[in-house]
Amino acid sequence: MPLQNDLILRTARGEFVERTPVWLMRQAGRILKEYREVRASVGSFKNLVQTPELAAEVTIQPVDILGVDAAIVFSDILEIPQAMGLPYEMVEKRGPIFENTIETVADVEKLIIPDPETELGYVMEAIRLTKKGLNGRVPLIGFAGAPWTIFAYMVEGSGSKTFSKARRMLYTDPMTSEALLQKITDSTIEYLKAQIKAGADMVQIFDSWAGILPPDQYQEFSVRYLAQICHALPEDVPVTLFAKGAFFARQALSQLNCQTIGLDWNMDILESRRIIGPAKTLQGNLDPCVLYGSPETIQEKTIEMLDKFRGSRHIANLGHGVYPDTDPEKVKVFIQTVKEHTMKF
Amino acid sequence: MPLQNDLILRTARGEFVERTPVWLMRQAGRILKEYREVRASVGSFKNLVQTPELAAEVTIQPVDILGVDAAIVFSDILEIPQAMGLPYEMVEKRGPIFENTIETVADVEKLIIPDPETELGYVMEAIRLTKKGLNGRVPLIGFAGAPWTIFAYMVEGSGSKTFSKARRMLYTDPMTSEALLQKITDSTIEYLKAQIKAGADMVQIFDSWAGILPPDQYQEFSVRYLAQICHALPEDVPVTLFAKGAFFARQALSQLNCQTIGLDWNMDILESRRIIGPAKTLQGNLDPCVLYGSPETIQEKTIEMLDKFRGSRHIANLGHGVYPDTDPEKVKVFIQTVKEHTMKF
Repeated sequence: MPLQNDLILRTARGEFVERTPVWLMRQAGRILKEYREVRASVGSFKNLVQTPELAAEVTIQPVDILGVDAAIVFSDILEIPQAMGLPYEMVEKRGPIFENTIETVADVEKLIIPDPETELGYVMEAIRLTKKGLNGRVPLIGFAGAPWTIFAYMVEGSGSKTFSKARRMLYTDPMTSEALLQKITDSTIEYLKAQIKAGADMVQIFDSWAGILPPDQYQEFSVRYLAQICHALPEDVPVTLFAKGAFFARQALSQLNCQTIGLDWNMDILESRRIIGPAKTLQGNLDPCVLYGSPETIQEKTIEMLDKFRGSRHIANLGHGVYPDTDPEKVKVFIQTVKEHTMKF
Repeated sequence: MPLQNDLILRTARGEFVERTPVWLMRQAGRILKEYREVRASVGSFKNLVQTPELAAEVTIQPVDILGVDAAIVFSDILEIPQAMGLPYEMVEKRGPIFENTIETVADVEKLIIPDPETELGYVMEAIRLTKKGLNGRVPLIGFAGAPWTIFAYMVEGSGSKTFSKARRMLYTDPMTSEALLQKITDSTIEYLKAQIKAGADMVQIFDSWAGILPPDQYQEFSVRYLAQICHALPEDVPVTLFAKGAFFARQALSQLNCQTIGLDWNMDILESRRIIGPAKTLQGNLDPCVLYGSPETIQEKTIEMLDKFRGSRHIANLGHGVYPDTDPEKVKVFIQTVKEHTMKF
């Protein structure tokens, strides 16, 4: 089925587009009552992720309801550590909790590199069902967590303000740290390749905890592994890197074999373009809190952002996942503003 | 009582020093068993803050035990909102919780601008007792939260990963936001002036949640008020601004009437010096997790940091408060390395 709307793919590749494509991180889920109904029917977040028919359904919802230019498969970055042998529970108001954590090289050796079609078959099936359901309307984005971010959860065992337990290992046991990062990287490469084979038209790598490392450690314990992933994926599938908080790594990321770099809302657009250069597409970066404002505020701030990206490769998005208590009608104002305003560019 | 060690004051003023002064954010408390004993005797964190004799005792502990070049009064940035009329509780493992929050301009109007000598008399008394106890050994640092950070807690009602409730108000009700920020600013100026009058030799302003605002909002809702504070304080008392995460505001902060700017461990030292220029002292910025490493790692990383600051005005510190599970012996390695290595500069 050829794509009827491939704006985001052409933008990622630096080709001509009629207008700026737009989607939202976390668009599937959270804010939509239609999502909450499906979620309630199945009990837990994890059940939903592991039920391909329903995961596909909530993946497609924002395409129908919000009018975004891409779908992103409904899943979680923590499916990978789980498939490697470290299961987690998603605890309401606390986030993910791992029963076991990685402390020694023996713990790393016990982890497997999962076969995506078996251990992560539910994600592949969700992708296939989504592609069928989308029927060529918009491209489908696959995704994974960056090795550093997955490492942080696997060593810390939960979310954290400082991830000081995970970061401690980088100083006290760099060998084990590297062994774990390499195993996550190998698993992630297989996982993303399988997502692409199952139908993902582009992939995004989320380095959610990029911003807690010193610049030299970020280079050594994150960029090095991101480079491997970018290098290993098929040339014709655009890759997006989103390293939240890693303002100090924008230049390093611009050297990697990816098409798009995500900006968070702290990063100045013109400065980022200067640092990254013209050869990458930039994605982002409206402050998610703008969507709490009036329609007029949303229009004004969105246009302000779009005008700063004007004349260079841009995928419109927020600078972070949409916040759970955002009114979907406000999201529509954002999307409509992107579509209308950039049509005039 | 004249100071026997005024290294930190001379460094802040850009005068000649024999070696780089060193202290640690959160040095009073947390890591010291001597602190935990005092804390246990009095029950709660808040009781300790409000008992001047004991607050003075734990303020002086790190001077005796660790050999730092400055003491910082044991207190909390949230004493100000409490004195303004918004009490908080410090809940174990959760952090501060406010019973009431600010939602409307009427809520702002109900707040008072506290008289430091009455509503915050216990802090002033702790400062006076500390000065007496220090007996001129090292200078005493007073402190307050930045208006934006205090605002964030007063509107959000607790800590938060996103502070989306507090940030929402900036978009939906800028007038109330400004009224609240101004009232916090006015209170903070009185508070810091009183701390100086009570004996603080220098003051630091902590903008702990600087890093969650977009650059334009940080200028409008934080820098503007920091400027007022810097302008209002007596010329002869050095002021340090520490805006954690506000990499994008380094240039703006360098324009303010302060002597020292704190860097967190994400900020590249040479780049920061370039952006800020030679006319400010820089403070920081070792990754607190380095102190989990071996003595050799700590020495190596500390020397690496010191050499990058070499030849310009520098107060050695971590890039964040010392983490609670840090071994005091490791802290001593850090302090000793600073003293010995910079003696040779």
